[in-house]
Amino acid sequence: MYISSMIRVVLLGLGNVGIHLAKACINSEQIDLIQIYSRTKNHTNLLFESIPITNRIEELELADVYIIAIPDDAISEFSTQLKFKSGLVVHTSGNVPVKALKCNANKGVLYPVQTFTKNKDIDFKKIPIVFEVEEKEDLQLLEKLSKSLSDHTYNLNGDQRKYLHVAAVFVNNFSNHMCKLGYDICNENDVSFDLLKPLIMETASKVQLVSPMDAQTGPAIRNDKKVIENHLQLLNKNQKEIYTLVTNSIIDSLK
Amino acid sequence: MYISSMIRVVLLGLGNVGIHLAKACINSEQIDLIQIYSRTKNHTNLLFESIPITNRIEELELADVYIIAIPDDAISEFSTQLKFKSGLVVHTSGNVPVKALKCNANKGVLYPVQTFTKNKDIDFKKIPIVFEVEEKEDLQLLEKLSKSLSDHTYNLNGDQRKYLHVAAVFVNNFSNHMCKLGYDICNENDVSFDLLKPLIMETASKVQLVSPMDAQTGPAIRNDKKVIENHLQLLNKNQKEIYTLVTNSIIDSLK
Repeated sequence: MYISSMIRVVLLGLGNVGIHLAKACINSEQIDLIQIYSRTKNHTNLLFESIPITNRIEELELADVYIIAIPDDAISEFSTQLKFKSGLVVHTSGNVPVKALKCNANKGVLYPVQTFTKNKDIDFKKIPIVFEVEEKEDLQLLEKLSKSLSDHTYNLNGDQRKYLHVAAVFVNNFSNHMCKLGYDICNENDVSFDLLKPLIMETASKVQLVSPMDAQTGPAIRNDKKVIENHLQLLNKNQKEIYTLVTNSIIDSLK
Repeated sequence: MYISSMIRVVLLGLGNVGIHLAKACINSEQIDLIQIYSRTKNHTNLLFESIPITNRIEELELADVYIIAIPDDAISEFSTQLKFKSGLVVHTSGNVPVKALKCNANKGVLYPVQTFTKNKDIDFKKIPIVFEVEEKEDLQLLEKLSKSLSDHTYNLNGDQRKYLHVAAVFVNNFSNHMCKLGYDICNENDVSFDLLKPLIMETASKVQLVSPMDAQTGPAIRNDKKVIENHLQLLNKNQKEIYTLVTNSIIDSLK
């Protein structure tokens, strides 16, 4: 591959998403990560020695794509500082519309659908990437960039991405909270949470193969009133409310 | 190992749990699975050719341990048919008290904490087993049997097991339902559920290493009212109710 066909990328932001993106860019042969912008540039020198880093917007290099990886509520304000007109500016949020970008350059979105943990490596090629452009002329470029980062890329519109994001809250944040409630119940009764860990892995593993509807087991899907009643007697007010609402939702899903 | 030190087991029931238990017994060098009882014995001949099978209670062989692997609500009634006085009879339910067993022999519980799927193999050695005996004299035997089946065994009392079981409903059935709700949202908006599968695996994978409390991310834990409001506008009545209740529970968990 000729060096000229590499996509020149400037990455803006080095939080959780930024760090994982930087590594993925460096690992890709189609991407030339030419610069990183970070407000607090010092802490990152060690991680990415080979990549020039700056904390000054006015020092940004000319690039094909600028990837903004900063918290959702800071994206719009931050983008107003980008005064250049060439290149494509994308943010990485599932929830922020492309129109929130207030820069002069063309705009788009590159949203990796994953939860990132500091110091926990993850294979970026396996992370689905949702991309969106405002101008048709940018589609090919952003698709190429997405495919350079991931084996699973999807061109969705803004509405689809919004729905995907709320669905992600259910499967990630809310599933995790179900684990938190299970953790509390174990903890209060001197039972090790380790006992539930293989079950949690298997629950996730099952829906890789069959639909969550078909994967469901337990007292709710059997509408086993006796077991449900026994369970409710063990729970505190908050646990009981969630148990009741989710159980009824499972029962209703059969109709 | 001398043949005489093997634990002689009769397995009663060949549903999901029974089939996986039978395989685990056959794979263990410490266990001699001498007989299987199944009401409908025909369909199982192919699976376990080497093990004698019967559908007549009165034909049961003398064994050290009888493992009842049938639906929860059938255990008590079924156990009244076991007229022998020697050996240890255990059931495999997380939710049924040991006293539900109405046989003459000694009683106990051997509860594998996992969700089983037909035709999906699982490494039984990694499944936590909870065991409980009514008579102290049986502790050593049931502990040995448990350790022969699994690398992770726990001697819990009946109360702890009850709480563990309801915690399992949260982390398994309710987490799975959160995936079902996410699935519906994707489906209604022409978004592939495949997009969420790696996120679901990573959600489960995270809580193997850090507590669910520390693993939490998303708008609820940040109390990000703007995103929460945006999400609520996308949801139907049932989804909205669950979103609101779980979000509030996450916010409250910070207090």
